[in-house]
Amino acid sequence: MNIVLDAMGGDHAPKSVVEGVMKAVEKYQDVTFTLVGDEAKIRPFLTIDKNIQILHTEDYISGDEEPVKAVRRKKNSSLVLMAKEVKEGRADACISAGNTGALMAAGLLIVGRIKGIERPALSPTFPTVDGNGFVMLDVGANADAKAEHLFQYALMGSIYAEKVRGIKAPRVGLLNVGTEDNKGNELTKAAFEYIKEAKAVHFIGNVEARDLLNGVADVVVTDGFTGNVTLKAIEGTALSVFDMLKDVLTSDLKSKLAAAVLKPKLKSIKNKMDYSEYGGAALFGLKAPVVKAHGSSDANAVFNAIRQTREMVQTDMVSTISKTIETMELVIKEEGGGK
Amino acid sequence: MNIVLDAMGGDHAPKSVVEGVMKAVEKYQDVTFTLVGDEAKIRPFLTIDKNIQILHTEDYISGDEEPVKAVRRKKNSSLVLMAKEVKEGRADACISAGNTGALMAAGLLIVGRIKGIERPALSPTFPTVDGNGFVMLDVGANADAKAEHLFQYALMGSIYAEKVRGIKAPRVGLLNVGTEDNKGNELTKAAFEYIKEAKAVHFIGNVEARDLLNGVADVVVTDGFTGNVTLKAIEGTALSVFDMLKDVLTSDLKSKLAAAVLKPKLKSIKNKMDYSEYGGAALFGLKAPVVKAHGSSDANAVFNAIRQTREMVQTDMVSTISKTIETMELVIKEEGGGK
Repeated sequence: MNIVLDAMGGDHAPKSVVEGVMKAVEKYQDVTFTLVGDEAKIRPFLTIDKNIQILHTEDYISGDEEPVKAVRRKKNSSLVLMAKEVKEGRADACISAGNTGALMAAGLLIVGRIKGIERPALSPTFPTVDGNGFVMLDVGANADAKAEHLFQYALMGSIYAEKVRGIKAPRVGLLNVGTEDNKGNELTKAAFEYIKEAKAVHFIGNVEARDLLNGVADVVVTDGFTGNVTLKAIEGTALSVFDMLKDVLTSDLKSKLAAAVLKPKLKSIKNKMDYSEYGGAALFGLKAPVVKAHGSSDANAVFNAIRQTREMVQTDMVSTISKTIETMELVIKEEGGGK
Repeated sequence: MNIVLDAMGGDHAPKSVVEGVMKAVEKYQDVTFTLVGDEAKIRPFLTIDKNIQILHTEDYISGDEEPVKAVRRKKNSSLVLMAKEVKEGRADACISAGNTGALMAAGLLIVGRIKGIERPALSPTFPTVDGNGFVMLDVGANADAKAEHLFQYALMGSIYAEKVRGIKAPRVGLLNVGTEDNKGNELTKAAFEYIKEAKAVHFIGNVEARDLLNGVADVVVTDGFTGNVTLKAIEGTALSVFDMLKDVLTSDLKSKLAAAVLKPKLKSIKNKMDYSEYGGAALFGLKAPVVKAHGSSDANAVFNAIRQTREMVQTDMVSTISKTIETMELVIKEEGGGK
């Protein structure tokens, strides 16, 4: 298996990307890696040569560039060359910690969609209090979704949770404003019926945002707008509470002494909430695994994204999604048309 | 001024409702109160008689009843009789800690909308790290909103922030998936243009959910679905972090001793995040202030809801909204039609 990485993407590139790959190449003997980027900047962090290949380019897409334009124009950027490695069959999957929009555009325009999937979904795994985590999709690939898209998200999320996260009959919930069946806006009401009637996943009905971190579902389905806002509300609230906590713990000597006693345990809470442990956010619905690592990824986060990507390739997730969609379409056609 | 309260609404009714009124009646000599509910159950908590009136009824709407049906059928419920006191001019405003949906239905069907306001908005004040708080609307009165509704929310929220919360030229933000002008789904893109072009509020553009608790805006505008999910994501995340913290602080003797030192300061964080301090969630757009106190309100939360409601009546917020909408409609008509 070959995994290609955009060595120039992310806040700490190429250092953490290359360091993450060094950790992975030591652990996974069955994977070769292609690093796309400026060879002179990559070399200093390269401690292992075996199973590593560098695809040199000096061009790259920065975080603030307009995604679609950048992907169309910058043919020699590390991100575009990375996607081409997948498209042209030299790599099985790709990972970037760079511009999220550009990665989504490259995924859509270069790697391409699975037949039958209208909209790919950005699908991170969130932390939960019990440490099991859950997959939420979509968190922003597609701002305006239809019921049919939400059904496809349910399908793809469920396959991922089962194949890669090893959860049997994953509980799929629909993010909504109440748990009752008839709750919601036009979209969620239609999606509820769609997912329920299709009987293709273990659908547990509507779930509320306040129960997400308690692990109410293994897969949470929502439109990209709501998912993105929810992701940022959770991140922002956790950060604000930790910031206030830090202020309190360092406010005077007495507090500092007490805080010192509690430090390792407080750190364990912060680690629980650290979603870099759960890998990157995969873009489901493309012809190969395309994974977005967090922009602020350190070597460990890059390593976790590689671990996750390797599992997606090993378990052949893409062809499972593809076959399931084909079967579903056959069923829908036999029943005389979908919605 | 007379304020009427549903004495039977909320998890701790009638106790906390009556106790909250007792605090308020002592402090505010200019307000008389009507308590609607079972007199025999109200009396035991009544320590002051002056400026208090009881409207006796034994019927009430419980938290799990279907809102619109319950309001239509239970003509003698405490909630419906409360709304009628406002409708028929015997009270200036009403407060309930009971069934939120039923209160919204009673507001809409009995108290009635301000002319020109198509959709009332449920508008709580959220805590921020700096203690100033912000108003978010709508958090669930209306799941599917149009750009025009979001503009009206901006207008009403701004008037409330200025009149009742005393903020000059309140910063109004549109909740979105990014801060750039062109971000969002169809609704937020249209609303952005609408609010910007109307020039009726101090519009600061798009704001992200991760910045809300840092006080990025004084008024945050969103559709009822997104607002409700965001509210619950913030609540749920804060609760989960506090729960994990509690587990850590009570895990062994050493931790307990350290926690004892920090306790008062940790409590101050929890208090900062306690939105009962900010009063209830007002329903903006109705002919009189209709305020929803949190279901788990204690006497203090009820008192704060009364303080807030009193200010809404004193500052004549409803007629300001009404006059502003009228002026705006004139402007829109003169310009040759809105959107």
